[in-house]
Amino acid sequence: MDKGITTRQKNYNQWYLDVINVAGLAEHAPVKGCMIIKPYGFAIWENIQKTLDAKIKETGAKNAYFPLFIPQSLLKKEAQHIQGFAPECLVITQVGKKKLKEPLIVRPTSETIIYEVFAKWIKSYRDLPLLINQWANIARWELRPRLFLRTIEFLWQEGHTAHATEKEAEKKAREILELYRNFVESYLAIPVIAGEKTESEKFPGAVTTYTLEAMMQDGKALQLGTSHMLGQNFAKVFEVKFLDKDGQEKYVWQTSWGVSTRLIGGLIMAHSDDKGLVLPPKLAPLSVVIIPIWANKKEQKAVFTKADAIAKSLDLNLAVEKREELTFGAKHFEWEKKGVPLRIEIGPKELAKKSVVIVRRDTGEKELVKEEKVAVFVEKILDKMQKSLFSKALRFQKENSHTTDSWKEFKDFIKKDRGFVYAHWCGKALCEAEIKKETKATIRAIPFAQKSEKGKCILCGKPSKQRVVFAKAY
Amino acid sequence: MDKGITTRQKNYNQWYLDVINVAGLAEHAPVKGCMIIKPYGFAIWENIQKTLDAKIKETGAKNAYFPLFIPQSLLKKEAQHIQGFAPECLVITQVGKKKLKEPLIVRPTSETIIYEVFAKWIKSYRDLPLLINQWANIARWELRPRLFLRTIEFLWQEGHTAHATEKEAEKKAREILELYRNFVESYLAIPVIAGEKTESEKFPGAVTTYTLEAMMQDGKALQLGTSHMLGQNFAKVFEVKFLDKDGQEKYVWQTSWGVSTRLIGGLIMAHSDDKGLVLPPKLAPLSVVIIPIWANKKEQKAVFTKADAIAKSLDLNLAVEKREELTFGAKHFEWEKKGVPLRIEIGPKELAKKSVVIVRRDTGEKELVKEEKVAVFVEKILDKMQKSLFSKALRFQKENSHTTDSWKEFKDFIKKDRGFVYAHWCGKALCEAEIKKETKATIRAIPFAQKSEKGKCILCGKPSKQRVVFAKAY
Repeated sequence: MDKGITTRQKNYNQWYLDVINVAGLAEHAPVKGCMIIKPYGFAIWENIQKTLDAKIKETGAKNAYFPLFIPQSLLKKEAQHIQGFAPECLVITQVGKKKLKEPLIVRPTSETIIYEVFAKWIKSYRDLPLLINQWANIARWELRPRLFLRTIEFLWQEGHTAHATEKEAEKKAREILELYRNFVESYLAIPVIAGEKTESEKFPGAVTTYTLEAMMQDGKALQLGTSHMLGQNFAKVFEVKFLDKDGQEKYVWQTSWGVSTRLIGGLIMAHSDDKGLVLPPKLAPLSVVIIPIWANKKEQKAVFTKADAIAKSLDLNLAVEKREELTFGAKHFEWEKKGVPLRIEIGPKELAKKSVVIVRRDTGEKELVKEEKVAVFVEKILDKMQKSLFSKALRFQKENSHTTDSWKEFKDFIKKDRGFVYAHWCGKALCEAEIKKETKATIRAIPFAQKSEKGKCILCGKPSKQRVVFAKAY
Repeated sequence: MDKGITTRQKNYNQWYLDVINVAGLAEHAPVKGCMIIKPYGFAIWENIQKTLDAKIKETGAKNAYFPLFIPQSLLKKEAQHIQGFAPECLVITQVGKKKLKEPLIVRPTSETIIYEVFAKWIKSYRDLPLLINQWANIARWELRPRLFLRTIEFLWQEGHTAHATEKEAEKKAREILELYRNFVESYLAIPVIAGEKTESEKFPGAVTTYTLEAMMQDGKALQLGTSHMLGQNFAKVFEVKFLDKDGQEKYVWQTSWGVSTRLIGGLIMAHSDDKGLVLPPKLAPLSVVIIPIWANKKEQKAVFTKADAIAKSLDLNLAVEKREELTFGAKHFEWEKKGVPLRIEIGPKELAKKSVVIVRRDTGEKELVKEEKVAVFVEKILDKMQKSLFSKALRFQKENSHTTDSWKEFKDFIKKDRGFVYAHWCGKALCEAEIKKETKATIRAIPFAQKSEKGKCILCGKPSKQRVVFAKAY
């Protein structure tokens, strides 16, 4: 039976698109470069949103909403910022047939418009810290769009904070990165490398960009979340000042941070297999699908009754598959492709044994479980599956991380898509650029966890204090 | 003490803006015509979203997300539709400095892009009904923007459904209007007139538009939600067809429906008073504010302890007002302006009596309540307040609804902003336009609840079958 999925071995990029297609997660829109998030894909985003929103609110941030449109003049205020974003900006020049006096930009990110407003909101140290988050859509032109990973429009959350001191802002930027790391590892079950971006890779306008980098099954890196220490760069441009306790007027210290629908792309690529989507139970729209099996009307009635009873006993989002027009095989494959964590089969045989068959989507392991034990078993196995997806991904990440001091070996690792390469780097942008040009590998992060270790730059041989993580990236 | 609020009597429009300002709900953005929804205002929107989203999902609709950008050619496909929206459309003509081949429109509503996709998704009767909802931002140019009521960008939910039969679609359009009515009356505590729009007032491209019309405190009407029976208008243009059980290929029947952040505008105008915002308890971000009162450190400690204990005993969103830099009066006025439904005061006097004072925001009624009875009392009084806000608004609506057969009296009612006028109308667009021109009143709805009653058109005297609701509107 053709399941409509290219194998990873054969063509990893096509496999990714096939998994999205057969699971019904998203599709390309009639507008070039944009995507439609279909109900099943959007349900994953809603689960991400719900969990993350609660975690962000726990940090004291409050949700608000700022305009989609930014006057061109405002965006131009911070020089590095506009330089970074200008070429990707979608520009509104007219309303109906009438030309606008000043063009409006569809927000590529909201620092400028939000900080213009922060300057009005913040007067005194009593107004600080100001902690704001918004869930919004963002637009950046893309020449090589890719569902969930790079689309012209995407959905995200962006946090923006202002603080009285540098120390507080720095602490907040790191606190949020840690919140993201915890969320990505516990919910998406994706292990990440946390670290700092190099000067060339950081956010336009930031002092420091902190990042989370995950390894996909093809060995490439995917940046899953960033948190920026903005220092006083924007504060000085937008005049975000406050009267401090000591009677002095001072500029605030700021951070901004975000994760996007790209998380779903990471989720797909980290866990799925050649049979289709594999979802971590904590974010799966459905935890269980119950498939009754029957050969005649009498059996059908009995297994449906049992299936409904089992469904009722489980306090979970689930589906009972009762369609008559499909064979058991077709149903089985459909739910497998959709990555529902557990499949419960109930046929006449199981009925006779007062049991059901429970099958794990990730490992295919089957178990015959007594009816009265189903609820407890399901809860336990979902928890186990969540943890085992993470361990598996972590094992993969470790197996595909290499340490080398040889330029030849370095090039070989990168060329063969062998994952993350830990190598020494002198800290110069020139070497970084040269390495990128020659191998397509970029520095994904200067990892926090790395011990300081003296060595020589992998390219130029000049002294280096620490290894950094190189990889090809999405 | 100047509370920064103009009275309704003095200047209703200014009062509305003042209430929004002092409550911290929203403000004008640096982009002309756009608004910033501040955290307190956004918390109300989040409450609306949470409740309404659950109700919409109960009807079987699933959330999805479609692009913000619509190619100009797509929008032009339905003639009435483009005619209605073209002058308000924001047009993207370039990316960075590069001109786009085909301009993109920022969605003024999503019928066209969604139905272009429905045509791909729908093949057979088995794919029907297709029930989709999306929470999104929308842009329509506004010359006279007004916070929450008319802004260039606003937030809304838009539902889009496709059905096999006309009857089913018609039923869905009415089902959703009823869902909205129930939500608006039970949660926003605003009584509405449900009915049908006239030909001239209906949605561009619809067969019928159903509407909910609410009366504001100045007697003007505010349209709070609409549900459109689209018939096969869009289906024929976008080729949304299905193979029916009988083997015939047929066009689907469609509906679309939405409510927006305008609901918050209605909420403010329906209940608030000259002291500031009044919120229905079911949508208030905070149900209770506890204000400790003290004269010295010893008292402060005792009342804070008690305040915390009371707070802990209430399973509600609440605030305990502990700021030392403000007087009791200032705190009192601040929370009053923010419309928190209940204020609990705890001072040394109350402490001695093992009681607290509970004050209702809407009526100002005070009651001394024994500590152990606070939780039960609060729950009961919040429920009572929710209902009493609705009754009060309903009484106001009834008192300001007039039935007349005299053109002179009609003009007088409208001129004096006396609310809704029930009058006979011949059904001709010409009379409707003439009445609008002369009085500024429009037909808000042909109400469902109205009995058919023979009469003569208020303007031309020709036969009429039913009275319709005239009013000036926002």
